[in-house]
Amino acid sequence: MSVITIERKVLEKNDRIASRNRQLFRDRGMFVLNLVSSPGAGKTSLLERTFQELQGTMKIAVIEGDVQTDLDAQRVARYGVPVVQIVTLGGCHLEAGLVEDALKNMELDGVEILFIENVGNLVCPAGYDLGEAAKVVILSTTEGDDKPLKYPAMFINSSVLIVNKTDLVPYVKCDLDVLKGNALRINPSLKIFETSCFTGAGIPEWCGWLKQKGAGGQ
Amino acid sequence: MSVITIERKVLEKNDRIASRNRQLFRDRGMFVLNLVSSPGAGKTSLLERTFQELQGTMKIAVIEGDVQTDLDAQRVARYGVPVVQIVTLGGCHLEAGLVEDALKNMELDGVEILFIENVGNLVCPAGYDLGEAAKVVILSTTEGDDKPLKYPAMFINSSVLIVNKTDLVPYVKCDLDVLKGNALRINPSLKIFETSCFTGAGIPEWCGWLKQKGAGGQ
Repeated sequence: MSVITIERKVLEKNDRIASRNRQLFRDRGMFVLNLVSSPGAGKTSLLERTFQELQGTMKIAVIEGDVQTDLDAQRVARYGVPVVQIVTLGGCHLEAGLVEDALKNMELDGVEILFIENVGNLVCPAGYDLGEAAKVVILSTTEGDDKPLKYPAMFINSSVLIVNKTDLVPYVKCDLDVLKGNALRINPSLKIFETSCFTGAGIPEWCGWLKQKGAGGQ
Repeated sequence: MSVITIERKVLEKNDRIASRNRQLFRDRGMFVLNLVSSPGAGKTSLLERTFQELQGTMKIAVIEGDVQTDLDAQRVARYGVPVVQIVTLGGCHLEAGLVEDALKNMELDGVEILFIENVGNLVCPAGYDLGEAAKVVILSTTEGDDKPLKYPAMFINSSVLIVNKTDLVPYVKCDLDVLKGNALRINPSLKIFETSCFTGAGIPEWCGWLKQKGAGGQ
C-alpha cells in the first residue's frame, strides 16, 4: 500500500535530520531529553518543578510542542528559561525538522540541558526521533496501571519513566507496583522515578540524575 | 507535498466507508457513539457504569479499539455485553473500515446503542468519521482545564463532552467553570455532562440522555 512507502520516506527523512540534530547536541555538549506523555500527565509541571530545583546550577533551554496555543511556553518563560514554541496546527507529534527550525531561533551558547516537550500523545511521538539523548515518558497515576501494556511502543522507545501525580494514588485505581511491573515487562532497562509535582516528592532524585547526566553532556 | 494527497485519499476512502456504516446504523435504528479521549480519562469505566445503570432496559453492544491488548474488551465482557476488540497494532486511531469489519463479527439484531471506544488519543481520532451519530469526548479533571484550547479539533468535532473524575477536583488544579468555558468557547453547541465513575455522580443524567436518544435511534 502506497501510504506505507510514503510513511517510510517521511521517517527516513526524519531520521536524517534527527542525526544532524544529534550531532549538533554532541558538538555543544548539550544533554537533550524528549518529554512524551498523554495530555495532562504533567510534562510542563515537571519542567516547572525542575527549574525551581536546578535554579542557578545549570543552564536550561526548552522547546515546547503543542497542537495549538502557546500556553505552555508562557508557563516556562515565567522562570526566565529560554523557550521556543512550536505549534503543530493539528499535527499529532513533533518531527526532527521542526526541532531543527526551532534550534535556529535559540541562543544555545552554554546550554547544558535542552528539554523538548512533545505534543501530548502516548502513541504517535513514539516513532519519531528528534535527535534526543533519551525519551522520557511521563505517566500520571490517574491514567491507571495498565497503560504500559496498552501503549507499548512509547515505553519500549523511552529510557526513563516518570510516574507522576503519586500524591493522587490514594484516590485512584492505580497500584504503583503493578504499574512499574508492567512497564519493566515492556522494557526491562527503563529507569523509573516516582514524582509528585504537587508535593515535590521525587523531584530531587530526578534532578540529581539530570545534574549527573547534564554534566557529562549525554 | 505528496503525503497530503495520499492522506486526502485515505480520508476520502474512510468517509465512503463511514457513510456505509452510518446507513447500516440508520437501517437498524441503532444509536452509535464514538467515545474519544486521552489514555486513562475513563472511557471504559464510563461504559461499566453505563451498563450497570441501563441493565435490562436497553440492548447495548461495544466495539473496543486499542493499540494493544484486549484488556478493555475483557472488562466489558464481564457485564454480558457483546463486544468485539479491534487491536490496531500501533495505529493511533480507529478507521471506518476497521469498524465495518468488526460489525461483520457482531450479532446486531435488537441492538439499540452501540458504543465504539476509540484508541486513547486526544489528537488523531478527531479526523476520522466512523459512521457514528456523535463523537463523545471524555476529559478527566486530572488533565487540567486548558485542554479544550490545546486540542481544539477533538472538541470541535464532538457533540458531547463528559467531564469525568469530578471526585478528584479537590486534589487537582482544575477549575470546572474554566474548563467548561474553554470547551464552549471552542464549540458553543457542546452538550456537557459532569461525571465521576468512582462515586457514580452524573451517571443517571448521562444515561437519561442515552435512553432518550437510543429510543429514537439517532
